[in-house]
Amino acid sequence: MSQAKRRLNLNVGINPTGYLPASWKYRTGSRHDIADPQHYFRLARLAHRGVFDAVFVSDMPLLRLGEDSRPSQIIDPLILATAITSQVPDIGFVATVSSTFNSPFNLARRAQSVDIMSGGRLAINIVSNFVPDVAANFGKEPLPPREIRYPRANEFLDVAKKLWASWDPRREGEVPEDQFWDPSSAHTIDHEGEYFYVKGPLNVPRGPQGYPVIAQAGASEGGIDLAARHGEMLYANVLSREAGHALGRKVRDRAVSFGRDPSGIRIVPGLVAIIGETREEALRKHDLFSGAGSEEALLARFVKTHGIDPSGFNPDAVLEAEHFVPDQNRIQAVGFTQGLVDLLTHERLTAREVVRRSEGNHRLVLGTAEEVADQIIDLWADGSVDGYTLQPPRAPDDIEEFVDKVIPILQDRGVYPRAYEEGSTLRDRYALPYPD
Amino acid sequence: MSQAKRRLNLNVGINPTGYLPASWKYRTGSRHDIADPQHYFRLARLAHRGVFDAVFVSDMPLLRLGEDSRPSQIIDPLILATAITSQVPDIGFVATVSSTFNSPFNLARRAQSVDIMSGGRLAINIVSNFVPDVAANFGKEPLPPREIRYPRANEFLDVAKKLWASWDPRREGEVPEDQFWDPSSAHTIDHEGEYFYVKGPLNVPRGPQGYPVIAQAGASEGGIDLAARHGEMLYANVLSREAGHALGRKVRDRAVSFGRDPSGIRIVPGLVAIIGETREEALRKHDLFSGAGSEEALLARFVKTHGIDPSGFNPDAVLEAEHFVPDQNRIQAVGFTQGLVDLLTHERLTAREVVRRSEGNHRLVLGTAEEVADQIIDLWADGSVDGYTLQPPRAPDDIEEFVDKVIPILQDRGVYPRAYEEGSTLRDRYALPYPD
Repeated sequence: MSQAKRRLNLNVGINPTGYLPASWKYRTGSRHDIADPQHYFRLARLAHRGVFDAVFVSDMPLLRLGEDSRPSQIIDPLILATAITSQVPDIGFVATVSSTFNSPFNLARRAQSVDIMSGGRLAINIVSNFVPDVAANFGKEPLPPREIRYPRANEFLDVAKKLWASWDPRREGEVPEDQFWDPSSAHTIDHEGEYFYVKGPLNVPRGPQGYPVIAQAGASEGGIDLAARHGEMLYANVLSREAGHALGRKVRDRAVSFGRDPSGIRIVPGLVAIIGETREEALRKHDLFSGAGSEEALLARFVKTHGIDPSGFNPDAVLEAEHFVPDQNRIQAVGFTQGLVDLLTHERLTAREVVRRSEGNHRLVLGTAEEVADQIIDLWADGSVDGYTLQPPRAPDDIEEFVDKVIPILQDRGVYPRAYEEGSTLRDRYALPYPD
Repeated sequence: MSQAKRRLNLNVGINPTGYLPASWKYRTGSRHDIADPQHYFRLARLAHRGVFDAVFVSDMPLLRLGEDSRPSQIIDPLILATAITSQVPDIGFVATVSSTFNSPFNLARRAQSVDIMSGGRLAINIVSNFVPDVAANFGKEPLPPREIRYPRANEFLDVAKKLWASWDPRREGEVPEDQFWDPSSAHTIDHEGEYFYVKGPLNVPRGPQGYPVIAQAGASEGGIDLAARHGEMLYANVLSREAGHALGRKVRDRAVSFGRDPSGIRIVPGLVAIIGETREEALRKHDLFSGAGSEEALLARFVKTHGIDPSGFNPDAVLEAEHFVPDQNRIQAVGFTQGLVDLLTHERLTAREVVRRSEGNHRLVLGTAEEVADQIIDLWADGSVDGYTLQPPRAPDDIEEFVDKVIPILQDRGVYPRAYEEGSTLRDRYALPYPD
């Protein structure tokens, strides 16, 4: 990709109430809109107004019933992707899908179907699921451990890619008059691996993108490995310039070691932007939307989350990275804490500073629209990241505010388009190569 | 349902080239439209112009590679349902889905998602898959035998219905100000059966129809059983008045024996209508679209299909039903031959007559638009059937012809609506009860 053409890529999350735990208390709308199609279309149209490359939904096939629970992953992501790309032009869709609780044939077929129906606007964010409760919706077996889930996810994508390439009408030769098609344009894949046996071919032909863009978020060793083998749009937590550089280097080096061209990798980490007329107003919004209520409460949450002994805790003392190193063997997602470790490895920060640098484990940028735009451009300009996946604190309010206040600044700075102007697929928007 | 309100229900199949094997040679369009979204939208808009209650797609997760194969089940049905109901108002969608190769949680979630996004326009046609080759796309195990597939399908729908009822916002009580919702409006289902273990609840709330309409086609004993327990829209082969009566009686009686109210069952069998300026022209079209080429070739196909000794075969001799009784234990769909047996049980017919009464195992009606309309109204008028699921010989041509020529006659006869005038859901169109 030539430097002249490089521009900031932005996705935006549209889980229905927004990303921050208390956002629902301060947002426009009611809880009933979480299952209202019109609400999702509104969010996607707002994103379209902001010329976002794609909307994004996280997902988990689970409904928690605690009193402080908040259902936010409702409509099946690939169904939502189809509805939104049918109703809203141009915009892409990043759909989170599980490699643990789907069969590769069915998922490859559905994803390719959405890519065809949307004209090539789909990315699938492959997750292997880390919440044990999910497993109980799919049988008696507990969640497989990470050392199985990641190899299984790798093989899942190997199979999916074979299926996506198994019927390519471009291979069609001369078709005799009494035949409908040339069956030699398709072939069985006869995959027989450790986890899957799939004969193929897929009964959906090659789609507009070859296959959907592969997004990937995990930052554990297994996650990095999956990203290096298959990831094209990386959504891992990156809280600082150095962490962005380090992640990019690590994934690209490993991709090379697998014989993969690393130029097809984009890093678009999660980002929570909170905009105020002043930085103080943004801080106050953060206190509220996070559910903490005050900076002291944010600090108390930090102490609790990380199992720090509160007696003698000094919020203004510099933190040591090694206190936060995650256990690679635990079943929970390790990527969440890894971002903090990376941050503290490269910067000397106090807890009071750290609680304003990250929210929901994503990079947090706070301040006026100008300050937010500056911080977004900062890490992009030197290539630490290729863009961001915004997680709006409140939906729809903070999508609207970002579109109205920050997007114009990014456009005026010449780093972000004023209209959809590249090709029509998500690969075109991200300048990602087409397979094969 | 009061007699005054009763009206003919019609669905129409939109598999992309049409139902008859040689239809692609005589239709408008090219083979490339089988993966062209615009083609599907055109077919659905034609159906909408004809005020059809729903479009229908059959499905099989398999691509055959033989030289006389014809890929016709491409886009995943629930993805297609979402795209079409997003683009085309009013019309319902009957999506064929497999109970053998899906998990109940995922399928219940996707179906409810489509029903929500479409405003209550989904029916799912549950099939247990009878083609052994399909299994090889999902693992090493062969296709389970019918005695497992049908009990599994029954339990699959039991689980799905529990999940669809597991989160009902109408149960929500007073919600305290510091809570997002009332978690007691949802409950786990803790299903533990012979084939499935599913904790629940579903993370999609009750949809506009309570749950999607359940369509069902099988006519084996297992299929009748499934229809009686769960079926609302029955698509079994009905080739004659007596067969329609018999099927209705059998399913409704068995429904009663299961403690189910039989008034929620509609019989809308498959129907192939071939229209000509004269009956002779319609016969000629049948010869061509079926791929046989002539009546003699149709008879030869009949002889071959049913394993009849061609020496001494007299196409003008009356056939005996018992020669065609299907083996209930074979793995293939028995419903296909059952229709013929039922026909011959009630009518004295020669092979020459029989080949003009059924095509692709569905009822065949041939003649002028008036004659076709007469035959459609005939079995509907006395309640043998509630309507039909048209399988157009060619798509789009025979959908268009039916809409332009037959629909106006049905409207003029007062048995079919001139516009979408009942409520907005598929249950409303079919006067089907809402669950719970």
